[in-house]
Amino acid sequence: MNLVLLLEEDWIEADCRVRLHGRRRRHVLEIHRARLGDELRVGRLDGAVGHGCITRVDEDAVEMEVRLDADPPPPLGITVVLALPRPPVLRRTLISLTSMGVKRIALLNADGVEKSFWQSRALDAEAVFEQCVLGLEQARDTRMPEVVLRKRFKPFAEDELEDWIAGGRAFVAEPARQPTPASALETPTLLAVGPESGWSSYELASLQRAGLERISLGIRPLRVETALPALLARLA
Amino acid sequence: MNLVLLLEEDWIEADCRVRLHGRRRRHVLEIHRARLGDELRVGRLDGAVGHGCITRVDEDAVEMEVRLDADPPPPLGITVVLALPRPPVLRRTLISLTSMGVKRIALLNADGVEKSFWQSRALDAEAVFEQCVLGLEQARDTRMPEVVLRKRFKPFAEDELEDWIAGGRAFVAEPARQPTPASALETPTLLAVGPESGWSSYELASLQRAGLERISLGIRPLRVETALPALLARLA
Repeated sequence: MNLVLLLEEDWIEADCRVRLHGRRRRHVLEIHRARLGDELRVGRLDGAVGHGCITRVDEDAVEMEVRLDADPPPPLGITVVLALPRPPVLRRTLISLTSMGVKRIALLNADGVEKSFWQSRALDAEAVFEQCVLGLEQARDTRMPEVVLRKRFKPFAEDELEDWIAGGRAFVAEPARQPTPASALETPTLLAVGPESGWSSYELASLQRAGLERISLGIRPLRVETALPALLARLA
Repeated sequence: MNLVLLLEEDWIEADCRVRLHGRRRRHVLEIHRARLGDELRVGRLDGAVGHGCITRVDEDAVEMEVRLDADPPPPLGITVVLALPRPPVLRRTLISLTSMGVKRIALLNADGVEKSFWQSRALDAEAVFEQCVLGLEQARDTRMPEVVLRKRFKPFAEDELEDWIAGGRAFVAEPARQPTPASALETPTLLAVGPESGWSSYELASLQRAGLERISLGIRPLRVETALPALLARLA
């Protein structure tokens, strides 16, 4: 982690001292090999970033004195609507999207989404939160994205999507012989990415009725994990 | 897999019939749920793409009659020089780079590369070949990339890199406050991406002496798996 994200329960003295347990304690000691007096980059969940100086190490925790004095990096102004991928891909994708600065993610059902994916523990609120923490720590960010689940495609596409687009530009990614030239793009508000098998024709028509334009990286079908960073980088 | 890649040993009648075993037989039967008479996309390793019609299914293999009549997608004209990542990341990265059409990859040592990474089975020629096959199958491509290992940074940077750049533009990726505007770029011949901890200052200076310009996606440090597709999409 390139930043230690400080959660509400970490503070033992308001705005100045924290006590870290578990994964973060181990990471600070074993990966950063930090010792008493060392400084680490820290940030308050949904708040400022700065430095923490290690003031105590014991069996159970690491304590730091914290000084927060800078803003986290600016968010990427792109909302992502993603057909729910299989659980291991979802975990990596949440880290990846969060690290790139995406702040609003809808996980959507589609014909090509296996029903069992919706039963996965990877969708539990704590599991989603954990992956997003990893993404924030990776990118030295603090602002937690909002991740919502939409198990029914139709009401989302027909009733809700318009509000999500909020008058901005919106794109749906599809392989096509010609990649969309970067010059044709401007920062959109929304990007929709289908299941690996693609959107059904009904789904694609619904998204286009809702105002989504087609965008393509070219003829190659890509894995979700590859396509998402590529599309965001192309659009940003 | 979006295409069944046909290897030399698959052909049982030159240019027209193949017999597939193991992973590809299982995938065709269990994931594609293909049956006698079904057509699948196929491609010959380093050759043309087309369709295969299933003419026989037995305990051991699937046979297809094959018609190859089209070119694989155009390659991405970007060589990637990558500080060797840890083995699971390497595996996913080879798939991802191959799926995006990269045809030349150098895996390079750097200060930030753990020595143990070089002992990994993921670097065995067969393991690298397998991951690249997965990437080609994903992107319906047939042209196998060349993957070379360079365990010594200095001779590569000082003696070899110039030939790799071959007079084109070359970039080294580094986080920076300002992302490099897409308009400042043109398709380069080479992109170098460091270890997650970054290049050492000596390494960065060597790369710059060899002619690499700095390029950035912004201030956020990204995982290799996220940064690579994003950089390639930005440059392509």
